[in-house]
Amino acid sequence: MPFSPTDYEPYDFANRRHIGPSPEEMAEMLAVVGADSLDALIDETVPASIRQDDPLDFGPALSEHELLWTMRQIARKNRLVTSMIGQGYHGTVTPPAIQRNILENPAWYTAYTPYQPEISQGRLEALLNFQTMVSDLTGLPVANASLLDEATAAAEAMAMALRTAKSKARRFFVDENCHPQNINVMRTRAEPLGIEIVKGAPEDLDPGTVFGAIFQYPGTHGDLRDFSAQMTALHENGAIGTVIADPMALLLLKEPGAMGADIAVGSTQRFGVPMGFGGPHAAYIACSDALKRALPGRLVGVSIDSHGSKAYRLSLQTREQHIRREKATSNVCTAQALLAVMAGFYAVFHGPKGLKAIAQRIHGRMVQVAETLRAAGFDVEQERYFDTITVRVGAMQPVLMQAALDRRINLRRLGDDRIGITLDETTRAETIERLLSAFGLSADAAAANDGFRLPDDLARRSDYLTHPIFHLNRAETEMVRYMRRLADRDLALDRAMIPLGSCTMKLNSAAEMMPITWPEFANIHPYAPVDQTEGYRELISDLCDKLCAITGYDAMSMQPNSGAQGEYAGLMTIRAWHKAQGQDHRDICLIPISAHGTNPASAHMAGMEVVVVASSENGDIDLDDFRAKAEAAGDRLAACMVTYPSTHGVFEETIREVCAITHEHGGQVYLDGANLNAMVGLSKPGEIGADVSHLNLHKTFCIPHGGGGPGMGPIGVKAHLAPHLPGDPVTGEGAVNAAPFGSASILPISWAYIQMMGGDGLTQATKVAILNANYIAKRLESAYGVLFKGQNGRIAHECILDTRPFQKSAQVSVDDIAKRLIDNGFHAPTMSWPVAGTLMVEPTESETKAELDRFCEAMLSIRAEIAEIEDGAMDAANNPLKNAPHTTADLIAEWDRPYSREQGCFPPGAFRVDKYWPPVGRIDNAYGDRNLVCTCPPVEEYREAAE
Amino acid sequence: MPFSPTDYEPYDFANRRHIGPSPEEMAEMLAVVGADSLDALIDETVPASIRQDDPLDFGPALSEHELLWTMRQIARKNRLVTSMIGQGYHGTVTPPAIQRNILENPAWYTAYTPYQPEISQGRLEALLNFQTMVSDLTGLPVANASLLDEATAAAEAMAMALRTAKSKARRFFVDENCHPQNINVMRTRAEPLGIEIVKGAPEDLDPGTVFGAIFQYPGTHGDLRDFSAQMTALHENGAIGTVIADPMALLLLKEPGAMGADIAVGSTQRFGVPMGFGGPHAAYIACSDALKRALPGRLVGVSIDSHGSKAYRLSLQTREQHIRREKATSNVCTAQALLAVMAGFYAVFHGPKGLKAIAQRIHGRMVQVAETLRAAGFDVEQERYFDTITVRVGAMQPVLMQAALDRRINLRRLGDDRIGITLDETTRAETIERLLSAFGLSADAAAANDGFRLPDDLARRSDYLTHPIFHLNRAETEMVRYMRRLADRDLALDRAMIPLGSCTMKLNSAAEMMPITWPEFANIHPYAPVDQTEGYRELISDLCDKLCAITGYDAMSMQPNSGAQGEYAGLMTIRAWHKAQGQDHRDICLIPISAHGTNPASAHMAGMEVVVVASSENGDIDLDDFRAKAEAAGDRLAACMVTYPSTHGVFEETIREVCAITHEHGGQVYLDGANLNAMVGLSKPGEIGADVSHLNLHKTFCIPHGGGGPGMGPIGVKAHLAPHLPGDPVTGEGAVNAAPFGSASILPISWAYIQMMGGDGLTQATKVAILNANYIAKRLESAYGVLFKGQNGRIAHECILDTRPFQKSAQVSVDDIAKRLIDNGFHAPTMSWPVAGTLMVEPTESETKAELDRFCEAMLSIRAEIAEIEDGAMDAANNPLKNAPHTTADLIAEWDRPYSREQGCFPPGAFRVDKYWPPVGRIDNAYGDRNLVCTCPPVEEYREAAE
Repeated sequence: MPFSPTDYEPYDFANRRHIGPSPEEMAEMLAVVGADSLDALIDETVPASIRQDDPLDFGPALSEHELLWTMRQIARKNRLVTSMIGQGYHGTVTPPAIQRNILENPAWYTAYTPYQPEISQGRLEALLNFQTMVSDLTGLPVANASLLDEATAAAEAMAMALRTAKSKARRFFVDENCHPQNINVMRTRAEPLGIEIVKGAPEDLDPGTVFGAIFQYPGTHGDLRDFSAQMTALHENGAIGTVIADPMALLLLKEPGAMGADIAVGSTQRFGVPMGFGGPHAAYIACSDALKRALPGRLVGVSIDSHGSKAYRLSLQTREQHIRREKATSNVCTAQALLAVMAGFYAVFHGPKGLKAIAQRIHGRMVQVAETLRAAGFDVEQERYFDTITVRVGAMQPVLMQAALDRRINLRRLGDDRIGITLDETTRAETIERLLSAFGLSADAAAANDGFRLPDDLARRSDYLTHPIFHLNRAETEMVRYMRRLADRDLALDRAMIPLGSCTMKLNSAAEMMPITWPEFANIHPYAPVDQTEGYRELISDLCDKLCAITGYDAMSMQPNSGAQGEYAGLMTIRAWHKAQGQDHRDICLIPISAHGTNPASAHMAGMEVVVVASSENGDIDLDDFRAKAEAAGDRLAACMVTYPSTHGVFEETIREVCAITHEHGGQVYLDGANLNAMVGLSKPGEIGADVSHLNLHKTFCIPHGGGGPGMGPIGVKAHLAPHLPGDPVTGEGAVNAAPFGSASILPISWAYIQMMGGDGLTQATKVAILNANYIAKRLESAYGVLFKGQNGRIAHECILDTRPFQKSAQVSVDDIAKRLIDNGFHAPTMSWPVAGTLMVEPTESETKAELDRFCEAMLSIRAEIAEIEDGAMDAANNPLKNAPHTTADLIAEWDRPYSREQGCFPPGAFRVDKYWPPVGRIDNAYGDRNLVCTCPPVEEYREAAE
Repeated sequence: MPFSPTDYEPYDFANRRHIGPSPEEMAEMLAVVGADSLDALIDETVPASIRQDDPLDFGPALSEHELLWTMRQIARKNRLVTSMIGQGYHGTVTPPAIQRNILENPAWYTAYTPYQPEISQGRLEALLNFQTMVSDLTGLPVANASLLDEATAAAEAMAMALRTAKSKARRFFVDENCHPQNINVMRTRAEPLGIEIVKGAPEDLDPGTVFGAIFQYPGTHGDLRDFSAQMTALHENGAIGTVIADPMALLLLKEPGAMGADIAVGSTQRFGVPMGFGGPHAAYIACSDALKRALPGRLVGVSIDSHGSKAYRLSLQTREQHIRREKATSNVCTAQALLAVMAGFYAVFHGPKGLKAIAQRIHGRMVQVAETLRAAGFDVEQERYFDTITVRVGAMQPVLMQAALDRRINLRRLGDDRIGITLDETTRAETIERLLSAFGLSADAAAANDGFRLPDDLARRSDYLTHPIFHLNRAETEMVRYMRRLADRDLALDRAMIPLGSCTMKLNSAAEMMPITWPEFANIHPYAPVDQTEGYRELISDLCDKLCAITGYDAMSMQPNSGAQGEYAGLMTIRAWHKAQGQDHRDICLIPISAHGTNPASAHMAGMEVVVVASSENGDIDLDDFRAKAEAAGDRLAACMVTYPSTHGVFEETIREVCAITHEHGGQVYLDGANLNAMVGLSKPGEIGADVSHLNLHKTFCIPHGGGGPGMGPIGVKAHLAPHLPGDPVTGEGAVNAAPFGSASILPISWAYIQMMGGDGLTQATKVAILNANYIAKRLESAYGVLFKGQNGRIAHECILDTRPFQKSAQVSVDDIAKRLIDNGFHAPTMSWPVAGTLMVEPTESETKAELDRFCEAMLSIRAEIAEIEDGAMDAANNPLKNAPHTTADLIAEWDRPYSREQGCFPPGAFRVDKYWPPVGRIDNAYGDRNLVCTCPPVEEYREAAE
């Protein structure tokens, strides 16, 4: 018999599907690395002093099939009820073509942030569409490529106002009509920055006493107000005015720009992105031209490539990469790219006419309901409303709420005597029938109340979405082809390894992704009654337990929905704890010089003063300096922030001492979890001395990067900090995000990953991540210097290749190498971080040996090309590196280069038949920053591109 | 206000999403066409004599959102029960990565049959993997790219045996252990061909009296037998031996080739393709080298391209395109490409070790169940079994069946005293527990019965899946990238119009596709109890009603799952009706010369003699000849087969007369529904005189082509024929397919389409299909002759462009034009059918004016290139047409052509940035037929390709 009975496990997700190298490949790789076994390698790499005692034990791992079955049981525990709660979250119709071709398409969801613009033209165009849409709808000239959620966008607007206002006041006025979660998140942000929040009715604004003010439009109870007078008054006093505006309402109503607002923020959730129990969705921020350079987050702009053709890129990028650390009022360094892309496509799909019709339909239905209720004698508070009304019902409140629930409708409970009703795109005639019947009324009564009730003085008078991209034909064939063309311009994980150091671009498996678009997870309002969300709560609670077991922490908050927000939330938790101990004076945070720029920014936002700690020559924290700085801080020491393994990709031996010194001086240890992928199953932050960490679920736990978001950055804390975790966004204190569980709808991804891996699988993944990194380091170390190693010459899960010498030896920059790698068929590793002029490579455990070898051969061939320049055999100005990436436009044109087309286009690593051709040549960054264009360029340029 | 209140309907699927041209575009197009309005154009095109009186009325059309909501309500009416019925259908685990990246990916499912191999290399490779898998598992050297289902494959094997056997006997032996549906479908096929079926136990075979024999392996009751002795005996008598084999069993058991079988057939459903209430799945057929040129269906082979590189193509294609019409014993002209691709990927995903482990796991679980039952005193019939046993339970049968049902398990009812149990890949420990408890046993009892029970003499002793493609690493990253690379090689509807005449490549919308992968539709056994399939039955019944309303027929059979099978089923229905009238002698079928080749083939299979009717000069049926032939046939006239509108793309004015003449002579009218897309809402076949039609749901009703299948070809009939429609495949007579409703799981697509279009939308689609075709005809008629028009100079929904003159004027063949169109960014129109040397263009209603214009400009530029050759300005042998398609390999190489790279690669129509580059140059067809290789080529060639 060719096969004897085998114990081969075809359904073993961890070792068959998720982890790249097969056992045979691992043996070959260990031989190259020079380790006796995988465990021996790990022993040489991870210091014994930090290893955890017991293996992770989560019971047997599930197969993909079992996972999906289990997930269905959980999903059924979420009840699908029509939510008319509103309060910033709305039912929406995701066009199926967008769901299938964007949200469920790995070409979109596995893409990385578009820092390498030449291979990101598709999503950059899609994000530019989003920016153009936001700019048009708000009537403000500049919009960014999205923020995390409406509440944090409001807080960002407040911080932006603080940065830019001429007024030196420290007060900020908040419209009492803002959604409560927006107010709460702003409060959290305000306190450590020394901002005093003044809440009141818009007409009570005292413009001379504030540096800015923010208003909600429509108000949380449904009211429509014109804030033009307030804006004028603010400007007269050197203050900044912001409007939180619902983009659906802006289709019919006067836009913030027309009111004179400086800033507008809001959520684009209802543009086709499911509620998902709170997220992820794309918030937006737009501002006047004067403020554009203070805009937080990512900004897509237009530039030109080496052929002079139009090309997109992230503008003013240096702004982001060098967040003003110690003085930061924002630590935003991500976006909700995938969701912004969806919202942008929603607008492209419907166009201005379609969107307007949708808004009109919603309003028309609301008129039916409101006026029918009013006619029946109900006390409807609003005369001017768009999609939301508040009904004063007195003691009938519980009865009516229940009557609605009996008809599968959630209404909003307001105090003990009012009810809020918000309609949306999904409201059908039948829904209105159910709703009215809860109020004891028949649908016939509604028929009389057709028509619109928008106040003429608030009617929108300007055009929007006039750009041709919003006037495509919109047949599905055309839409699908447009999405495909954009997708094909980009290089994502579905085509090649993306060896980004610190970014952990591992497998995002199809099984993990499937549940998130099931209605039972997608269509749940974040403030739905608890008994409707049992599935979610069970899953989240179990996920917290498992993450605690993995990290050694005692409690977890799922609220932060990005890594940076996790940092901020963690430090705020420390701050609250110190306060509770009567140690308000503790305000110094020690941060190593090698830290990610968000660390000091987050510390400053948490009201801490940053003291930088030196590194020793080998890249480790300089322990003497650390001790000295800690002593100097004395009883002002609040915290230290360390990344482990370090941002240099090394398990520092001194981590326990760092923690001990911090504790000795009364400080708390914040361990940045960015590199947790090198620890899971081997070492627990909570056991080696850390008090709090954020976890990047979008790195370590398989949430896809989505082309630059969504992410999730929950924080784990030791027991003593647990009472100080962020509170409920609506009813509690200290919220950092609008939704109780952040971007809840992507948590099933991480949970699925853990279930299918099991404890052993997770641990094996960590080991293989370390093996893969050491394999690359070993194969490339003779060609490139590998900076920073551990005591046994091992690196952790990533390695830094030193490309600095080539600048001098061959005039080759790290940028040249990154662009050349595109020719070789790769996304570049992380550039110039944490050390300028270097490349940081993180292969993750998911890449196979074949792919690692393809990458190594590409890197070696690039080194050989550099050697040719060094030797003088190749011209230093006209060579494959300087001319990279090569496009088909190069091939078509005259070829006047001292190397062949073959050499230019098919270097080692490039596929022959299946080669990825970048759509543009190298992009001129300086040109784009000099000529800032952040909305869709004029028609003619599109025409040219099409021809 | 920029917009006044609008009646724009953003959710109008018909006019916004499905139909390509916007109202504004239609106005422009009508101006070009020279028609006053769309209705005027239709009046000029469709003869008044055939127009239907009343518009289609299906109530209001549903939006995508409403459709999906409604579909969920229907889905819930199907009960998900664990089916252990077996009988050819098994639970299976579709790997999520395959579901997402193949089945739900438009790049795969919207592709056309790979007749243009240069743009089909991806799916051709995937199908070659399938063929290699089948060949390996069956131990036979040649396998085709799939057949419709196991039962029809068995019938094909019978017909193939008839064609190839040396024996002149007309008897065919059928193993009584075959699944009943296989026997029934063979019976249906045998009768009109004059074959006598002899059913018996394998040991009762009398080899001297038959031309062939067929055996099922494992038998329908679970028994395992070695048929080697039978094969030897058959061969000694010049007869052909066939084994119907379960590929899962072949992983562990002696293969048909090793038994000496000439042919093997079976279903690959359980290789990752959901049961779907009966289909679609890919059946397979494999044969010995001696029989390969008699193999029905499509055969992928290996050839070389213009650079001498390996390239795939359909082999021996002439065989298929020129089915031997009047003498045919097969009319197969399609495959189940999408499903074969899935099954092939399932094997690539798991590899031989994984597949074997799956088979072992299934068998091991069956051993547990069987031996536990036996030990408890149950009468288990089989000593030798793989995954199926039969238990003799006597009067306990109903009680046990119900006990199983109470535990959500379907068992197979056999007679009134036996029960069949079949396990599969989805059987878990928990399932076995439920099953045993139905028999009153505890799971503990099962533990004692671990191990395998396969008889040693039937153990498989040969290797399989040794080719490297089945030994990829199999990490999901690698698998997904492989699928992406293959997809990117192909040009499908998601990138460009596919203007294939007669093939109706219209939009397959995402909303239509979504429900088919819901478990409630996917995981239903075709023979599940009626009360578990109420959702399906409700949907199918409503679909039948609507199709009857559209066609004017009175009854519908959903059994045929391809157009050709529909033809055959329709003619068999006519045959049965004649018989019932005592008119057995009627056996002549009149068929116009212009008919599709399947028409005469089907007629012959239905036992009819074909009499060909001439065409008049304008392409229409020669009415005089028709009348003469009908008269000559006299009371032998059984039927006529006509296509309407004609295969020339014209609404012939004489259709009512043709029908009348036929009826006058006692015949029945078969109206081929291939061109129904030009009739829906305007004219009903059943009202203009036809008695029966098949409908191509995969053309007119939006089931995607899947790269060459699945399809559905239900037949509609007038009331008098209804009693003679195909009977139930298991219990009835006259079945043409194994499943009662054919490929039931794709019927939701057509139903969704009709629901979202509504009667008005469907009618508008027809009109716009006619407008689009006339627009193209008008724009191209001065450059190309348009063959065949109606009385007012209008064409129907497609037009034939005459490219024959260029052969003489410029040595340019229709093939050259087709290949050049690839450079322009298009899939060629239908080539050389129905007129050799011409192109037939059908744009469908789904294409926008912009896309039609892009196509017209491409065609006009090709005409200009031809003119240059005609003028002598361009070389007749070395020009863009002869060298087409141009690849990046051409660009990299020396360019020694008398035209520029730019001209070669970017002719009008080609996208600049988003150009589709064919992966290979023009393929040498003759080379491939001379050197027939139909399994994956050796390793070295893969290596070369990768380098």
